[in-house]
Amino acid sequence: MAKKKLILDLDTGVDDAMAIAYAVAAPNADLIGIVNSYGNVVVEQAAKNSLQILDLLGANDVPVFEGESHSQTSDHFDVMPVSAHIHGKNGIGEVKLPESSRSVEKESGVDFMIDAAHKYGKDLTIIPTGPLTNLASALRKDPEISDLIGHVTLMGGALTVPGNVSDAAEANINQDAEAANEVFTNKVPVTMVGLDVTLRTLLTKKETQQWRDLGTTAGEKFADIVDYYIGIYDEMYPELGGCSLHDPLAVGVACDPTFVQTLDLDMIVHHGEENYGRTTGDTAKLDDPNPSDQAAIQVDDKRYLKTFMQYLTKLFADNK
Amino acid sequence: MAKKKLILDLDTGVDDAMAIAYAVAAPNADLIGIVNSYGNVVVEQAAKNSLQILDLLGANDVPVFEGESHSQTSDHFDVMPVSAHIHGKNGIGEVKLPESSRSVEKESGVDFMIDAAHKYGKDLTIIPTGPLTNLASALRKDPEISDLIGHVTLMGGALTVPGNVSDAAEANINQDAEAANEVFTNKVPVTMVGLDVTLRTLLTKKETQQWRDLGTTAGEKFADIVDYYIGIYDEMYPELGGCSLHDPLAVGVACDPTFVQTLDLDMIVHHGEENYGRTTGDTAKLDDPNPSDQAAIQVDDKRYLKTFMQYLTKLFADNK
Repeated sequence: MAKKKLILDLDTGVDDAMAIAYAVAAPNADLIGIVNSYGNVVVEQAAKNSLQILDLLGANDVPVFEGESHSQTSDHFDVMPVSAHIHGKNGIGEVKLPESSRSVEKESGVDFMIDAAHKYGKDLTIIPTGPLTNLASALRKDPEISDLIGHVTLMGGALTVPGNVSDAAEANINQDAEAANEVFTNKVPVTMVGLDVTLRTLLTKKETQQWRDLGTTAGEKFADIVDYYIGIYDEMYPELGGCSLHDPLAVGVACDPTFVQTLDLDMIVHHGEENYGRTTGDTAKLDDPNPSDQAAIQVDDKRYLKTFMQYLTKLFADNK
Repeated sequence: MAKKKLILDLDTGVDDAMAIAYAVAAPNADLIGIVNSYGNVVVEQAAKNSLQILDLLGANDVPVFEGESHSQTSDHFDVMPVSAHIHGKNGIGEVKLPESSRSVEKESGVDFMIDAAHKYGKDLTIIPTGPLTNLASALRKDPEISDLIGHVTLMGGALTVPGNVSDAAEANINQDAEAANEVFTNKVPVTMVGLDVTLRTLLTKKETQQWRDLGTTAGEKFADIVDYYIGIYDEMYPELGGCSLHDPLAVGVACDPTFVQTLDLDMIVHHGEENYGRTTGDTAKLDDPNPSDQAAIQVDDKRYLKTFMQYLTKLFADNK
């Protein structure tokens, strides 16, 4: 089976780092590049983190790009205090990693997406796990790619549960609801991996201890990074008993869509004052026989967690 | 197969009248009573309409009860102008039907529900298609019935699409979100038949013409009642091309759950100032292995409409 060509579009915080590890480790995936975004951190920090995480995983052949630095409806971006709290000020749980010897590519992240769509077509899956600003910019700059891109599997939104920054909005969508609405209402095929399923997919310190026990640099650093995040979850969401695997679940679903049950539904993102950032079905398109969007509504969290641990633990074991 | 014992809890407007016809006609249903509610009309008018519709259908052995006259958080109820517009001032499309020779029962609708739960247990399905005030009152008055009632199949709510009285709220839930929250968070098993599926289930004047062509009183009166409603839909929702079969779909699902695909999900109803009346999953119960609620998210509208027309057309043919 030909490997899927993956582009990750990350605002590299803790769960984004796990998403990178999943994409590097998955046997049926070929990670052709990482585009970076503002969100959990500013875009420059996201790119820096992506480079360092790739180094840690022995994957320093994956090119890293910078995308947009703020939403299309603002002129700059400041990290929200709650983001700095959840991911640490540096985005990776205050863990220090060696400076990378590599730099970001000169090409913009948006142009890289457009070029990859033309080069790989249906073999290409784009996985945004932050704001949808970069992808919306690419679709606007070259509308042809709507028909070329194989699939978009994104972490964001909340269809059947309330949001996490407000009752209405999930954090990624909330950063740029206008861009999100452009992506959802575009004909490009989208699978939304939202809070509906990511809140059911949990990691605990029992699992990170397995990484620590490997005695490798990758295992220890990842245990440190994720334990920071689990500590914050314990404080903010004690009822969960672990941290949500938001971003790595989106990569899992891109590699193996059978991890989730989906609902075919054309969606919109509310971007007026009321319910800013809410993702819902589009009432005007309920009888569309071929919706371009689908939302994950159930997850086989046990099988996913088993696969996640197999992939990441082997990868960390191999990187001393 | 033993017939299902059904109680309809209606605010008898136009689609409620079709719900009565479906319950009278369905071969596997035994309609043991109709409880009435405020909503599309005031409760006294709802009861009057229920009696007249039963007479029209030759089903004047079905007892009719009055339930609560307003929500538990108010001290009276006035019909909203939009309801009077959609269903007509008399609730049945301004169509005049003969006065019934029967009256409402002396027992309250709430007590009738409680008695029926004790008498029929798991064989009993309660189908509220208006506010959930009566059922919430019954569950509060006799908490034991939570474990007795076989099923609650209700028309109301919107999980994957926006509401119809606001982005957040569907009309029935909006009348008494507090009562709705009591019903959803109660352990009684609930299937929510909301706008998610009822907006996909449409009737047009092509179908009502078949009733008119029967040349029977029931056929002609029902064609008149429903044509009024379709006319309002044409004016308010021209993009739909027909009227939604909200209430009769709930009866259809109660009789044959395979008409819809459902999502198992413990739900809550938001009843604070923000998002009053919104129905969503309960984040705190996402890992509950046995949710007591399920939401209909897809519908086989073609098979449902075919069954609906078979049942109702035969019933109208038999009532000259």
